[in-house]
Amino acid sequence: MLIDGKGLSKQMDAAIIEKVNTLKTAGIEPKLAVILVGHDPASQIYVRNKHRKAKLVGITSIDKRMPETTTQDELLAVIHEYNRDASIHGILVQLPLPQQIDESAIIQAILPSKDVDGFSPVNLGRLFEDSAEAYPVPCTPRGIMTMLDTYHVPLEGAHAVMVGSSNIVGRPLGAMLLNRNATVSYTHKFTQDLSGITRTADILVVATGVAHLIKGQDIKPGATVIDVGMDRDENGKLVGDVDFDEAVQVAGKITPVPGGVGPMTITTLMQQTLELAEGKFSKTRERQHV
Amino acid sequence: MLIDGKGLSKQMDAAIIEKVNTLKTAGIEPKLAVILVGHDPASQIYVRNKHRKAKLVGITSIDKRMPETTTQDELLAVIHEYNRDASIHGILVQLPLPQQIDESAIIQAILPSKDVDGFSPVNLGRLFEDSAEAYPVPCTPRGIMTMLDTYHVPLEGAHAVMVGSSNIVGRPLGAMLLNRNATVSYTHKFTQDLSGITRTADILVVATGVAHLIKGQDIKPGATVIDVGMDRDENGKLVGDVDFDEAVQVAGKITPVPGGVGPMTITTLMQQTLELAEGKFSKTRERQHV
Repeated sequence: MLIDGKGLSKQMDAAIIEKVNTLKTAGIEPKLAVILVGHDPASQIYVRNKHRKAKLVGITSIDKRMPETTTQDELLAVIHEYNRDASIHGILVQLPLPQQIDESAIIQAILPSKDVDGFSPVNLGRLFEDSAEAYPVPCTPRGIMTMLDTYHVPLEGAHAVMVGSSNIVGRPLGAMLLNRNATVSYTHKFTQDLSGITRTADILVVATGVAHLIKGQDIKPGATVIDVGMDRDENGKLVGDVDFDEAVQVAGKITPVPGGVGPMTITTLMQQTLELAEGKFSKTRERQHV
Repeated sequence: MLIDGKGLSKQMDAAIIEKVNTLKTAGIEPKLAVILVGHDPASQIYVRNKHRKAKLVGITSIDKRMPETTTQDELLAVIHEYNRDASIHGILVQLPLPQQIDESAIIQAILPSKDVDGFSPVNLGRLFEDSAEAYPVPCTPRGIMTMLDTYHVPLEGAHAVMVGSSNIVGRPLGAMLLNRNATVSYTHKFTQDLSGITRTADILVVATGVAHLIKGQDIKPGATVIDVGMDRDENGKLVGDVDFDEAVQVAGKITPVPGGVGPMTITTLMQQTLELAEGKFSKTRERQHV
Protein backbone atom coordinates (compact mmCIF):
# COMPACT_ATOMS: atom_id res chain seq x y z
CA MET A 1 0.00 0.00 0.00
CA LEU A 2 1.37 3.35 -1.09
CA ILE A 3 1.47 6.19 1.44
CA ASP A 4 0.37 9.07 -0.74
CA GLY A 5 2.15 12.09 0.71
CA LYS A 6 1.23 14.23 -2.24
CA GLY A 7 -2.48 13.49 -1.94
CA LEU A 8 -2.42 13.86 1.84
CA SER A 9 -0.61 17.19 1.62
CA LYS A 10 -3.35 18.45 -0.71
CA GLN A 11 -6.00 17.46 1.84
CA MET A 12 -3.98 19.30 4.48
CA ASP A 13 -3.64 22.36 2.26
CA ALA A 14 -7.42 22.50 1.93
CA ALA A 15 -7.85 22.29 5.71
CA ILE A 16 -5.18 24.96 6.22
CA ILE A 17 -6.85 27.30 3.70
CA GLU A 18 -10.08 27.01 5.65
CA LYS A 19 -8.41 27.75 8.98
CA VAL A 20 -6.43 30.65 7.52
CA ASN A 21 -9.70 32.16 6.31
CA THR A 22 -11.27 31.75 9.72
CA LEU A 23 -8.26 33.45 11.28
CA LYS A 24 -8.38 36.31 8.80
CA THR A 25 -12.07 36.81 9.55
CA ALA A 26 -11.01 37.20 13.18
CA GLY A 27 -8.56 39.90 12.09
CA ILE A 28 -5.35 37.84 12.25
CA GLU A 29 -3.26 37.50 9.09
CA PRO A 30 -0.79 34.60 9.45
CA LYS A 31 2.63 35.76 8.35
CA LEU A 32 5.87 33.84 7.74
CA ALA A 33 9.26 35.50 7.29
CA VAL A 34 11.73 33.51 5.19
CA ILE A 35 15.32 34.74 5.23
CA LEU A 36 17.71 33.59 2.51
CA VAL A 37 21.36 34.60 2.77
CA GLY A 38 23.43 34.19 -0.38
CA HIS A 39 22.57 32.33 -3.54
CA ASP A 40 22.89 28.60 -2.92
CA PRO A 41 20.95 27.09 -5.86
CA ALA A 42 19.20 24.38 -3.83
CA SER A 43 18.24 26.89 -1.14
CA GLN A 44 16.78 29.19 -3.77
CA ILE A 45 14.50 26.41 -4.99
CA TYR A 46 13.44 25.46 -1.46
CA VAL A 47 12.66 29.07 -0.60
CA ARG A 48 10.73 29.59 -3.82
CA ASN A 49 8.61 26.51 -3.09
CA LYS A 50 7.87 27.76 0.43
CA HIS A 51 6.62 31.09 -0.90
CA ARG A 52 4.49 29.34 -3.53
CA LYS A 53 2.89 27.09 -0.95
CA ALA A 54 2.33 30.02 1.42
CA LYS A 55 0.57 31.90 -1.35
CA LEU A 56 -1.54 28.83 -2.16
CA VAL A 57 -2.84 28.52 1.41
CA GLY A 58 -3.28 32.25 1.95
CA ILE A 59 -0.34 32.81 4.30
CA THR A 60 1.55 36.06 3.80
CA SER A 61 5.25 35.42 3.36
CA ILE A 62 8.11 37.88 3.57
CA ASP A 63 10.83 37.09 1.03
CA LYS A 64 13.91 38.52 2.73
CA ARG A 65 17.08 38.17 0.62
CA MET A 66 20.47 39.10 1.99
CA PRO A 67 23.82 39.04 0.17
CA GLU A 68 26.43 36.26 0.50
CA THR A 69 28.67 38.74 2.37
CA THR A 70 26.10 39.42 5.12
CA THR A 71 27.70 39.56 8.56
CA GLN A 72 26.34 37.72 11.57
CA ASP A 73 25.39 41.03 13.20
CA GLU A 74 23.47 42.12 10.13
CA LEU A 75 21.50 38.88 10.10
CA LEU A 76 20.91 39.08 13.86
CA ALA A 77 19.56 42.61 13.44
CA VAL A 78 16.95 41.34 10.97
CA ILE A 79 15.97 38.51 13.29
CA HIS A 80 15.62 40.87 16.24
CA GLU A 81 13.42 43.14 14.12
CA TYR A 82 11.19 40.19 13.17
CA ASN A 83 11.13 38.98 16.77
CA ARG A 84 9.73 42.38 17.82
CA ASP A 85 7.26 42.61 14.93
CA ALA A 86 3.98 41.25 16.33
CA SER A 87 2.55 40.83 12.83
CA ILE A 88 5.15 38.10 12.06
CA HIS A 89 4.26 34.67 13.49
CA GLY A 90 7.00 32.45 12.10
CA ILE A 91 10.66 33.12 11.28
CA LEU A 92 12.62 30.73 9.09
CA VAL A 93 16.29 31.12 8.20
CA GLN A 94 17.13 28.93 5.23
CA LEU A 95 20.18 26.76 5.94
CA PRO A 96 23.04 26.40 5.21
CA LEU A 97 24.40 29.87 5.97
CA PRO A 98 27.65 31.33 4.61
CA GLN A 99 30.78 30.38 6.57
CA GLN A 100 31.17 33.73 8.35
CA ILE A 101 27.88 33.18 10.19
CA ASP A 102 27.44 30.89 13.21
CA GLU A 103 24.24 28.94 12.45
CA SER A 104 23.76 27.99 16.06
CA ALA A 105 23.85 31.64 17.21
CA ILE A 106 21.33 32.56 14.52
CA ILE A 107 18.88 29.79 15.36
CA GLN A 108 19.10 30.60 19.07
CA ALA A 109 18.32 34.26 18.30
CA ILE A 110 14.89 33.36 16.90
CA LEU A 111 12.20 33.67 19.58
CA PRO A 112 11.18 30.11 20.54
CA SER A 113 7.56 31.14 20.03
CA LYS A 114 8.34 32.09 16.39
CA ASP A 115 10.67 29.15 15.72
CA VAL A 116 8.54 27.66 12.94
CA ASP A 117 11.28 25.18 11.95
CA GLY A 118 11.49 23.83 15.52
CA PHE A 119 15.28 23.90 15.44
CA SER A 120 15.99 26.06 18.52
CA PRO A 121 17.57 24.18 21.44
CA VAL A 122 14.77 25.02 23.85
CA ASN A 123 12.12 23.59 21.50
CA LEU A 124 14.26 20.53 20.73
CA GLY A 125 14.73 20.06 24.48
CA ARG A 126 10.97 20.18 25.04
CA LEU A 127 10.55 17.54 22.36
CA PHE A 128 13.33 15.40 23.81
CA GLU A 129 11.89 15.50 27.34
CA ASP A 130 8.30 15.04 26.06
CA SER A 131 7.25 18.29 27.69
CA ALA A 132 3.58 18.75 28.51
CA GLU A 133 3.84 22.21 26.99
CA ALA A 134 3.10 22.86 23.33
CA TYR A 135 6.00 23.80 21.07
CA PRO A 136 6.90 23.87 17.37
CA VAL A 137 8.89 20.89 16.07
CA PRO A 138 10.93 20.15 12.94
CA CYS A 139 8.61 19.91 9.93
CA THR A 140 9.89 16.82 8.11
CA PRO A 141 9.49 14.47 11.09
CA ARG A 142 6.14 15.98 12.02
CA GLY A 143 4.94 15.46 8.46
CA ILE A 144 6.01 11.82 8.77
CA MET A 145 4.07 11.47 12.03
CA THR A 146 1.00 12.84 10.26
CA MET A 147 1.43 10.23 7.52
CA LEU A 148 1.85 7.40 10.04
CA ASP A 149 -1.24 8.48 11.97
CA THR A 150 -3.37 9.06 8.88
CA TYR A 151 -2.49 5.59 7.59
CA HIS A 152 -3.23 4.11 11.04
CA VAL A 153 0.25 2.71 11.59
CA PRO A 154 0.38 1.42 15.19
CA LEU A 155 3.12 3.23 17.11
CA GLU A 156 2.90 2.04 20.72
CA GLY A 157 5.23 -0.92 21.18
CA ALA A 158 6.29 -0.87 17.53
CA HIS A 159 10.01 -0.99 16.78
CA ALA A 160 10.91 2.15 14.83
CA VAL A 161 14.39 2.23 13.32
CA MET A 162 15.94 5.48 12.12
CA VAL A 163 18.54 4.93 9.40
CA GLY A 164 20.39 8.23 9.59
CA SER A 165 20.33 10.25 12.81
CA SER A 166 20.47 13.88 11.71
CA ASN A 167 19.04 16.83 13.62
CA ILE A 168 16.63 17.51 10.77
CA VAL A 169 14.97 14.10 10.53
CA GLY A 170 16.25 11.07 12.44
CA ARG A 171 16.83 12.50 15.90
CA PRO A 172 13.61 14.54 16.26
CA LEU A 173 11.49 11.85 14.61
CA GLY A 174 12.91 9.27 17.00
CA ALA A 175 11.90 11.51 19.92
CA MET A 176 8.38 11.95 18.52
CA LEU A 177 8.01 8.18 18.18
CA LEU A 178 9.44 7.59 21.66
CA ASN A 179 6.91 10.10 23.01
CA ARG A 180 4.21 7.89 21.46
CA ASN A 181 5.67 4.79 23.17
CA ALA A 182 7.44 3.22 20.22
CA THR A 183 10.71 1.37 20.77
CA VAL A 184 13.24 3.53 18.92
CA SER A 185 16.64 2.62 17.47
CA TYR A 186 19.03 5.19 16.03
CA THR A 187 21.45 3.91 13.39
CA HIS A 188 23.98 5.73 11.20
CA LYS A 189 27.16 5.23 9.24
CA PHE A 190 29.02 3.78 12.26
CA THR A 191 26.35 1.13 12.87
CA GLN A 192 27.48 -2.46 12.57
CA ASP A 193 25.13 -5.05 11.07
CA LEU A 194 22.70 -2.37 9.87
CA SER A 195 20.63 -4.91 7.99
CA GLY A 196 20.26 -7.04 11.12
CA ILE A 197 18.64 -4.06 12.84
CA THR A 198 16.51 -2.81 9.95
CA ARG A 199 15.05 -6.29 9.51
CA THR A 200 13.54 -6.00 13.01
CA ALA A 201 11.84 -2.67 12.23
CA ASP A 202 8.07 -2.38 12.17
CA ILE A 203 8.61 1.23 11.06
CA LEU A 204 11.72 1.90 8.99
CA VAL A 205 12.69 5.52 8.34
CA VAL A 206 15.56 6.09 5.94
CA ALA A 207 17.21 9.51 5.69
CA THR A 208 20.81 9.10 4.59
CA GLY A 209 21.22 10.70 1.17
CA VAL A 210 22.55 7.39 -0.19
CA ALA A 211 20.52 6.28 -3.21
CA HIS A 212 18.99 2.80 -2.86
CA LEU A 213 20.85 2.02 0.39
CA ILE A 214 17.99 -0.13 1.66
CA LYS A 215 17.09 -3.21 -0.38
CA GLY A 216 14.16 -5.59 -0.11
CA GLN A 217 16.19 -8.01 2.03
CA ASP A 218 16.75 -5.29 4.64
CA ILE A 219 13.03 -4.93 5.29
CA LYS A 220 10.80 -6.93 7.62
CA PRO A 221 7.79 -8.28 5.70
CA GLY A 222 4.80 -6.03 6.33
CA ALA A 223 6.85 -3.13 7.72
CA THR A 224 6.00 0.50 7.10
CA VAL A 225 8.83 2.11 5.12
CA ILE A 226 9.33 5.90 5.08
CA ASP A 227 11.86 7.09 2.51
CA VAL A 228 13.17 10.60 3.17
CA GLY A 229 15.84 10.40 0.48
CA MET A 230 15.90 12.69 -2.57
CA ASP A 231 18.81 11.30 -4.58
CA ARG A 232 19.74 11.02 -8.24
CA ASP A 233 20.50 7.60 -9.69
CA GLU A 234 23.11 6.94 -12.42
CA ASN A 235 20.62 8.12 -15.06
CA GLY A 236 19.87 11.36 -13.23
CA LYS A 237 16.44 10.13 -12.17
CA LEU A 238 15.09 11.27 -8.77
CA VAL A 239 15.13 8.25 -6.44
CA GLY A 240 15.02 7.59 -2.72
CA ASP A 241 17.31 5.96 -0.18
CA VAL A 242 15.16 2.83 -0.53
CA ASP A 243 15.17 0.58 -3.60
CA PHE A 244 11.47 1.08 -4.20
CA ASP A 245 10.93 -1.71 -6.73
CA GLU A 246 12.35 -4.27 -4.31
CA ALA A 247 10.90 -2.73 -1.15
CA VAL A 248 7.34 -2.53 -2.44
CA GLN A 249 7.36 -6.37 -2.70
CA VAL A 250 8.13 -6.71 1.03
CA ALA A 251 6.78 -3.65 2.84
CA GLY A 252 3.24 -3.35 4.15
CA LYS A 253 3.13 0.38 3.50
CA ILE A 254 5.70 2.55 1.74
CA THR A 255 6.20 6.16 0.68
CA PRO A 256 7.16 6.84 -2.94
CA VAL A 257 9.91 9.23 -4.05
CA PRO A 258 8.84 11.72 -5.26
CA GLY A 259 5.36 12.25 -3.84
CA GLY A 260 5.94 10.94 -0.31
CA VAL A 261 7.74 12.84 2.45
CA GLY A 262 8.65 15.89 0.34
CA PRO A 263 5.20 17.45 -0.11
CA MET A 264 4.35 16.75 3.55
CA THR A 265 7.32 18.77 4.82
CA ILE A 266 6.36 22.01 3.15
CA THR A 267 2.69 21.65 4.04
CA THR A 268 3.65 20.98 7.64
CA LEU A 269 5.61 24.23 7.59
CA MET A 270 2.40 26.02 6.67
CA GLN A 271 0.49 24.07 9.33
CA GLN A 272 2.97 25.25 11.97
CA THR A 273 2.91 28.85 10.74
CA LEU A 274 -0.87 28.73 11.09
CA GLU A 275 -0.59 27.26 14.59
CA LEU A 276 1.93 29.92 15.61
CA ALA A 277 -0.54 32.56 14.40
CA GLU A 278 -3.32 30.83 16.33
CA GLY A 279 -1.08 30.68 19.38
CA LYS A 280 -1.45 26.91 19.73
CA PHE A 281 0.37 23.80 18.63
CA SER A 282 -0.49 20.20 18.16
CA LYS A 283 1.37 18.22 20.81
CA THR A 284 3.63 15.51 19.52
CA ARG A 285 2.43 13.12 22.18
CA GLU A 286 -1.01 13.27 20.56
CA ARG A 287 -2.25 11.82 17.28
CA GLN A 288 -1.44 14.04 14.32
CA HIS A 289 -4.30 14.75 11.97
CA VAL A 290 -5.02 16.62 8.81
CA MET B 1 35.26 -7.41 35.54
CA LEU B 2 33.63 -5.16 38.10
CA ILE B 3 33.21 -1.47 37.25
CA ASP B 4 34.08 0.10 40.58
CA GLY B 5 31.98 3.26 40.71
CA LYS B 6 32.77 3.78 44.36
CA GLY B 7 36.52 3.64 43.84
CA LEU B 8 36.34 5.76 40.72
CA SER B 9 34.24 8.40 42.48
CA LYS B 10 36.90 8.61 45.19
CA GLN B 11 39.56 9.24 42.57
CA MET B 12 37.32 11.92 41.07
CA ASP B 13 36.73 13.49 44.49
CA ALA B 14 40.50 13.80 44.95
CA ALA B 15 40.85 15.47 41.56
CA ILE B 16 37.94 17.82 42.34
CA ILE B 17 39.44 18.78 45.72
CA GLU B 18 42.63 19.77 43.97
CA LYS B 19 40.84 21.87 41.36
CA VAL B 20 38.63 23.50 43.98
CA ASN B 21 41.76 24.53 45.87
CA THR B 22 43.28 25.97 42.70
CA LEU B 23 40.10 27.92 42.08
CA LYS B 24 40.00 29.22 45.65
CA THR B 25 43.60 30.37 45.31
CA ALA B 26 42.42 32.36 42.30
CA GLY B 27 39.74 33.95 44.49
CA ILE B 28 36.76 31.94 43.28
CA GLU B 29 34.78 29.92 45.82
CA PRO B 30 32.59 27.34 44.06
CA LYS B 31 29.09 27.50 45.50
CA LEU B 32 26.08 25.24 45.02
CA ALA B 33 22.54 26.14 46.10
CA VAL B 34 20.32 23.17 46.91
CA ILE B 35 16.63 23.92 47.38
CA LEU B 36 14.42 21.39 49.13
CA VAL B 37 10.69 22.06 49.31
CA GLY B 38 8.72 19.97 51.81
CA HIS B 39 9.83 16.90 53.69
CA ASP B 40 9.86 13.93 51.35
CA PRO B 41 12.01 11.39 53.25
CA ALA B 42 13.96 10.17 50.20
CA SER B 43 14.60 13.75 49.08
CA GLN B 44 15.91 14.61 52.54
CA ILE B 45 18.46 11.80 52.31
CA TYR B 46 19.53 12.79 48.78
CA VAL B 47 19.94 16.42 49.82
CA ARG B 48 21.88 15.49 52.94
CA ASN B 49 24.25 13.37 50.84
CA LYS B 50 24.80 16.22 48.41
CA HIS B 51 25.76 18.59 51.21
CA ARG B 52 28.08 16.00 52.72
CA LYS B 53 29.84 15.44 49.41
CA ALA B 54 30.09 19.20 48.78
CA LYS B 55 31.72 19.64 52.16
CA LEU B 56 34.12 16.78 51.45
CA VAL B 57 35.37 18.34 48.20
CA GLY B 58 35.44 21.91 49.55
CA ILE B 59 32.43 23.26 47.67
CA THR B 60 30.25 25.66 49.64
CA SER B 61 26.64 24.56 49.63
CA ILE B 62 23.54 26.53 50.55
CA ASP B 63 20.97 24.36 52.31
CA LYS B 64 17.73 26.13 51.44
CA ARG B 65 14.67 24.51 53.02
CA MET B 66 11.16 25.67 52.20
CA PRO B 67 7.88 24.43 53.68
CA GLU B 68 5.53 21.92 51.97
CA THR B 69 3.03 24.76 51.46
CA THR B 70 5.48 26.92 49.44
CA THR B 71 3.80 28.57 46.47
CA GLN B 72 5.25 28.55 42.98
CA ASP B 73 5.84 32.31 43.17
CA GLU B 74 7.73 31.96 46.45
CA LEU B 75 9.98 29.30 44.94
CA LEU B 76 10.46 31.36 41.76
CA ALA B 77 11.48 34.34 43.89
CA VAL B 78 14.27 32.29 45.49
CA ILE B 79 15.46 31.03 42.12
CA HIS B 80 15.52 34.55 40.69
CA GLU B 81 17.53 35.70 43.71
CA TYR B 82 20.06 32.88 43.18
CA ASN B 83 20.14 33.58 39.44
CA ARG B 84 21.19 37.16 40.18
CA ASP B 85 23.69 36.20 42.91
CA ALA B 86 27.04 36.01 41.11
CA SER B 87 28.59 34.09 44.02
CA ILE B 88 26.29 31.10 43.30
CA HIS B 89 27.45 28.89 40.43
CA GLY B 90 24.97 26.03 40.48
CA ILE B 91 21.29 25.87 41.44
CA LEU B 92 19.62 22.55 42.14
CA VAL B 93 15.95 22.11 42.99
CA GLN B 94 15.37 18.69 44.53
CA LEU B 95 12.53 16.87 42.78
CA PRO B 96 9.73 15.93 43.16
CA LEU B 97 8.04 19.20 44.15
CA PRO B 98 4.70 19.50 45.96
CA GLN B 99 1.63 19.32 43.69
CA GLN B 100 0.86 23.05 43.72
CA ILE B 101 4.16 23.79 41.96
CA ASP B 102 4.74 23.29 38.21
CA GLU B 103 8.13 21.53 38.03
CA SER B 104 8.63 22.50 34.42
CA ALA B 105 8.16 26.21 35.17
CA ILE B 106 10.65 25.95 38.04
CA ILE B 107 13.33 24.17 36.03
CA GLN B 108 12.96 26.66 33.17
CA ALA B 109 13.41 29.53 35.63
CA ILE B 110 16.93 28.40 36.51
CA LEU B 111 19.52 30.22 34.40
CA PRO B 112 20.83 27.67 31.84
CA SER B 113 24.36 28.67 32.89
CA LYS B 114 23.58 27.67 36.52
CA ASP B 115 21.55 24.56 35.62
CA VAL B 116 23.88 22.12 37.39
CA ASP B 117 21.41 19.23 36.98
CA GLY B 118 21.26 19.75 33.20
CA PHE B 119 17.47 19.43 33.21
CA SER B 120 16.49 22.72 31.55
CA PRO B 121 15.01 22.35 28.04
CA VAL B 122 17.68 24.50 26.40
CA ASN B 123 20.51 22.37 27.84
CA LEU B 124 18.68 19.14 26.97
CA GLY B 125 18.16 20.50 23.46
CA ARG B 126 21.88 21.22 23.12
CA LEU B 127 22.62 17.67 24.20
CA PHE B 128 20.01 16.24 21.82
CA GLU B 129 21.38 18.18 18.83
CA ASP B 130 25.01 17.49 19.79
CA SER B 131 25.71 21.21 19.99
CA ALA B 132 29.30 22.34 19.58
CA GLU B 133 28.74 24.60 22.60
CA ALA B 134 29.51 23.47 26.12
CA TYR B 135 26.58 22.94 28.47
CA PRO B 136 25.77 21.11 31.72
CA VAL B 137 24.10 17.69 31.37
CA PRO B 138 22.21 15.36 33.70
CA CYS B 139 24.61 13.90 36.27
CA THR B 140 23.67 10.23 36.35
CA PRO B 141 24.22 9.65 32.60
CA ARG B 142 27.40 11.73 32.61
CA GLY B 143 28.73 9.67 35.50
CA ILE B 144 27.99 6.55 33.45
CA MET B 145 29.88 8.01 30.47
CA THR B 146 32.85 8.62 32.78
CA MET B 147 32.74 4.99 33.89
CA LEU B 148 32.52 3.70 30.30
CA ASP B 149 35.45 5.87 29.22
CA THR B 150 37.57 5.08 32.25
CA TYR B 151 37.06 1.36 31.68
CA HIS B 152 37.86 1.80 27.96
CA VAL B 153 34.53 0.51 26.71
CA PRO B 154 34.41 1.11 22.94
CA LEU B 155 31.48 3.36 22.05
CA GLU B 156 31.73 4.09 18.32
CA GLY B 157 29.66 1.53 16.44
CA ALA B 158 28.70 -0.30 19.62
CA HIS B 159 25.03 -1.11 20.14
CA ALA B 160 23.89 0.60 23.34
CA VAL B 161 20.47 -0.38 24.62
CA MET B 162 18.63 1.72 27.21
CA VAL B 163 16.17 -0.31 29.25
CA GLY B 164 13.99 2.47 30.63
CA SER B 165 13.81 5.79 28.79
CA SER B 166 13.33 8.41 31.50
CA ASN B 167 14.42 12.04 31.29
CA ILE B 168 16.83 11.47 34.18
CA VAL B 169 18.82 8.55 32.78
CA GLY B 170 17.79 6.72 29.62
CA ARG B 171 17.01 9.57 27.25
CA PRO B 172 19.99 11.82 28.01
CA LEU B 173 22.41 8.88 28.21
CA GLY B 174 21.18 7.66 24.83
CA ALA B 175 21.90 11.11 23.38
CA MET B 176 25.39 11.14 24.92
CA LEU B 177 26.12 7.74 23.40
CA LEU B 178 24.68 8.76 20.03
CA ASN B 179 26.92 11.84 20.13
CA ARG B 180 29.83 9.42 20.49
CA ASN B 181 28.65 7.41 17.45
CA ALA B 182 27.11 4.45 19.23
CA THR B 183 24.02 2.82 17.76
CA VAL B 184 21.35 3.55 20.37
CA SER B 185 18.08 1.76 21.12
CA TYR B 186 15.48 3.07 23.56
CA THR B 187 13.27 0.46 25.19
CA HIS B 188 10.62 0.74 27.92
CA LYS B 189 7.55 -0.93 29.34
CA PHE B 190 5.78 -0.90 25.95
CA THR B 191 8.66 -2.66 24.20
CA GLN B 192 7.88 -6.05 22.69
CA ASP B 193 10.51 -8.80 22.82
CA LEU B 194 12.70 -6.82 25.22
CA SER B 195 15.05 -9.76 25.67
CA GLY B 196 15.53 -10.06 21.90
CA ILE B 197 16.82 -6.49 21.89
CA THR B 198 18.89 -6.60 25.09
CA ARG B 199 20.69 -9.72 23.82
CA THR B 200 22.08 -7.62 20.92
CA ALA B 201 23.46 -4.94 23.27
CA ASP B 202 27.20 -4.37 23.55
CA ILE B 203 26.35 -1.81 26.26
CA LEU B 204 23.25 -2.50 28.31
CA VAL B 205 21.94 0.23 30.62
CA VAL B 206 19.10 -0.70 32.92
CA ALA B 207 17.13 2.00 34.75
CA THR B 208 13.61 0.77 35.43
CA GLY B 209 13.13 0.47 39.17
CA VAL B 210 12.16 -3.19 38.74
CA ALA B 211 14.35 -5.44 40.90
CA HIS B 212 16.19 -8.14 38.94
CA LEU B 213 14.33 -7.40 35.68
CA ILE B 214 17.37 -8.40 33.61
CA LYS B 215 18.60 -11.99 33.91
CA GLY B 216 21.71 -13.66 32.58
CA GLN B 217 19.89 -14.92 29.49
CA ASP B 218 19.00 -11.33 28.51
CA ILE B 219 22.67 -10.35 28.21
CA LYS B 220 25.02 -10.75 25.26
CA PRO B 221 28.18 -12.58 26.36
CA GLY B 222 30.93 -10.05 26.98
CA ALA B 223 28.58 -7.05 27.11
CA THR B 224 29.10 -4.10 29.44
CA VAL B 225 26.18 -3.92 31.87
CA ILE B 226 25.33 -0.70 33.74
CA ASP B 227 22.77 -1.13 36.50
CA VAL B 228 21.11 2.12 37.59
CA GLY B 229 18.53 0.38 39.79
CA MET B 230 18.31 0.86 43.54
CA ASP B 231 15.62 -1.58 44.58
CA ARG B 232 14.78 -3.70 47.60
CA ASP B 233 14.40 -7.44 47.20
CA GLU B 234 11.94 -9.57 49.18
CA ASN B 235 14.35 -9.59 52.13
CA GLY B 236 14.75 -5.82 52.12
CA LYS B 237 18.26 -6.06 50.69
CA LEU B 238 19.42 -3.29 48.32
CA VAL B 239 19.61 -4.78 44.82
CA GLY B 240 19.69 -3.53 41.25
CA ASP B 241 17.50 -3.94 38.16
CA VAL B 242 19.95 -6.62 37.03
CA ASP B 243 20.21 -10.06 38.61
CA PHE B 244 23.87 -9.58 39.48
CA ASP B 245 24.73 -13.18 40.36
CA GLU B 246 23.50 -14.37 36.94
CA ALA B 247 24.72 -11.36 34.97
CA VAL B 248 28.27 -11.51 36.29
CA GLN B 249 28.64 -14.95 34.65
CA VAL B 250 27.81 -13.52 31.20
CA ALA B 251 28.81 -9.86 31.13
CA GLY B 252 32.27 -8.64 30.23
CA LYS B 253 32.06 -5.68 32.61
CA ILE B 254 29.35 -4.88 35.12
CA THR B 255 28.53 -2.30 37.79
CA PRO B 256 27.59 -3.55 41.25
CA VAL B 257 24.65 -2.26 43.31
CA PRO B 258 25.50 -0.58 45.61
CA GLY B 259 28.89 0.88 44.69
CA GLY B 260 28.34 1.40 40.96
CA VAL B 261 26.32 4.21 39.43
CA GLY B 262 25.16 5.77 42.70
CA PRO B 263 28.46 7.24 43.96
CA MET B 264 29.31 8.48 40.45
CA THR B 265 26.12 10.57 40.22
CA ILE B 266 26.80 12.66 43.27
CA THR B 267 30.48 13.13 42.44
CA THR B 268 29.49 14.20 38.91
CA LEU B 269 27.23 16.82 40.48
CA MET B 270 30.30 18.23 42.25
CA GLN B 271 32.31 18.00 39.02
CA GLN B 272 29.67 20.07 37.22
CA THR B 273 29.43 22.61 40.03
CA LEU B 274 33.18 23.04 39.77
CA GLU B 275 32.97 23.42 35.99
CA LEU B 276 30.19 26.00 36.32
CA ALA B 277 32.42 27.94 38.72
CA GLU B 278 35.32 27.61 36.28
CA GLY B 279 33.01 28.74 33.47
CA LYS B 280 33.75 25.68 31.37
CA PHE B 281 32.25 22.28 30.75
CA SER B 282 33.48 19.00 29.44
CA LYS B 283 31.73 18.38 26.13
CA THR B 284 29.75 15.18 25.88
CA ARG B 285 31.14 14.50 22.43
CA GLU B 286 34.58 14.17 24.00
CA ARG B 287 36.03 11.44 26.21
CA GLN B 288 35.06 11.87 29.85
CA HIS B 289 37.88 11.62 32.32
CA VAL B 290 38.49 11.79 36.01
